[in-house]
Amino acid sequence: MKEIKIFSPGTIANVSCGFDALGCCLDTIGDEMIIRKTDKKGVQITKITGDDLPFETHKNVAGVAALALLEKYNKSIDYGFEIEIYKNIKPGSGIGSSAASAAGAVFGINKLLNEPFTAQELILFASKGEELVSDFPIADNVAPALLGGFTLVKGYDPLKVLKLPVMDDLYATILHPQIEIKTSESRAILPEKANLKDAVKQWANVGALVHALHTEDYDLFGSSLHDLIVEPYRSQLIPGFDQVVKTAKDNGALGSGISGSGPSIFSFCKGIQQAEKLRDKIKKVYKKADIPFHIYVSKINKKGIKLI
Amino acid sequence: MKEIKIFSPGTIANVSCGFDALGCCLDTIGDEMIIRKTDKKGVQITKITGDDLPFETHKNVAGVAALALLEKYNKSIDYGFEIEIYKNIKPGSGIGSSAASAAGAVFGINKLLNEPFTAQELILFASKGEELVSDFPIADNVAPALLGGFTLVKGYDPLKVLKLPVMDDLYATILHPQIEIKTSESRAILPEKANLKDAVKQWANVGALVHALHTEDYDLFGSSLHDLIVEPYRSQLIPGFDQVVKTAKDNGALGSGISGSGPSIFSFCKGIQQAEKLRDKIKKVYKKADIPFHIYVSKINKKGIKLI
Repeated sequence: MKEIKIFSPGTIANVSCGFDALGCCLDTIGDEMIIRKTDKKGVQITKITGDDLPFETHKNVAGVAALALLEKYNKSIDYGFEIEIYKNIKPGSGIGSSAASAAGAVFGINKLLNEPFTAQELILFASKGEELVSDFPIADNVAPALLGGFTLVKGYDPLKVLKLPVMDDLYATILHPQIEIKTSESRAILPEKANLKDAVKQWANVGALVHALHTEDYDLFGSSLHDLIVEPYRSQLIPGFDQVVKTAKDNGALGSGISGSGPSIFSFCKGIQQAEKLRDKIKKVYKKADIPFHIYVSKINKKGIKLI
Repeated sequence: MKEIKIFSPGTIANVSCGFDALGCCLDTIGDEMIIRKTDKKGVQITKITGDDLPFETHKNVAGVAALALLEKYNKSIDYGFEIEIYKNIKPGSGIGSSAASAAGAVFGINKLLNEPFTAQELILFASKGEELVSDFPIADNVAPALLGGFTLVKGYDPLKVLKLPVMDDLYATILHPQIEIKTSESRAILPEKANLKDAVKQWANVGALVHALHTEDYDLFGSSLHDLIVEPYRSQLIPGFDQVVKTAKDNGALGSGISGSGPSIFSFCKGIQQAEKLRDKIKKVYKKADIPFHIYVSKINKKGIKLI
């Protein structure tokens, strides 16, 4: 195989109660990438459409992730790789734009090398790409992009990611207000400490959410989607947040929250009909906010990155 | 049925990462209780052996729990109940002494009334007994005593408890140093706030522990048993804590922690042989501490309270 074309999905990190730990994978929102073997050694980014991102390998998350992988590849190869990135996920949207690029690069190169690395290793390499934009090799978006479904980053020393089961009929409606919130900014506003009482509620909800995924309990899943610690700060950066959440609640959503560091707002629904109905309601409500927006409906993607 | 004799088990609350949320049920450590219909209306505590506890119904956790149940029973009855309590679990041991009494009382009376109440309702009544000694109707010990296995208190408003699955071969070795730590004291030393970074690790571990129980993954279960928030404070009240934990680690335990508010220290093991071997090692080590102690080995009890 000389070339691979992939769909690299968007992802929802945090999932309300699981700040910096939980994530899940989307199905209809994502970038396309082509990764190709070339005579020239090393890694080149040869094409980027859809956004104004750096072509220099060391300055591009896909490039950095690819280099992290090749550094650990212990066979000498007399060829290199070029990467084309067709971006659909806007950087700063909160649905894992950089993660899609980083995860796609390592997934593609691993395939072209005949899969020498495990999924856990690919997550580690992709997280090195994330480090370029997050100052930390955060894995809560790259993990669900690579593994699919819901994931839990158990810890970083060493990196350990768990793949959780997911219900067949779980959909997300995602509103992306076209304002940019940088992860670094939305991290800087967070307090260093949390009330112990809130933290207890938060980890009870994380435990309940994991149990809900295992037992396919939609109601329990929905009732676990609370964030007492991070959302009160970050939601202030998102115009109309409370109204979108209320609209979702009033229209049968299981629960809502901030996707990653925002500004995107996710709402989970049981079934595509509910999710599409909610999309139409939120569209109407958000038009009043006078902020351009995109809105998506996506099944939760169990597979992660796909060959196309 | 006029009379019921039960075994009401000890319990491990918190289970390291799940402060005020997780709990599990023991099998060989517990009280015995007899609950009997009598002509005299109301609830009387007629016998207590093994400890010096109040006989006045309103001052005894079993009595208060029983009254909470009867208050919600909507049929008029022309009889009452008497309760005999044969305590084996020392109050202030950290293995759910008051919870065993409260849970046993409501379990027994519910049986004698032909089971009008659900398990969730019984947990609520029993938690009212706990309120007498904890200033809060805490459910993390009464829930596993009533449901068996591992439980997660998802929240209190309304009370919602989840029963988690548990591996067949999971045992606990429990050291009870004979010093008394009052729950109120061990709660008073806790900080009101936790570092957000520690809280993230804690909820990642709670999520991982729930996943481990569902997937019967002993190693993941063990690696989730960390408490960065409460244990650093409470362990200082327990002489020899670090040495017991190290002994457990060196002898193949899956993990260790403080049972409830202490001073008991639990270590989980895979299989009874491992648990008994560890008991003998800890015995040797703790003899040097010059503090009287009990040490137990117990399977994790999947059923909770049992008829005897």
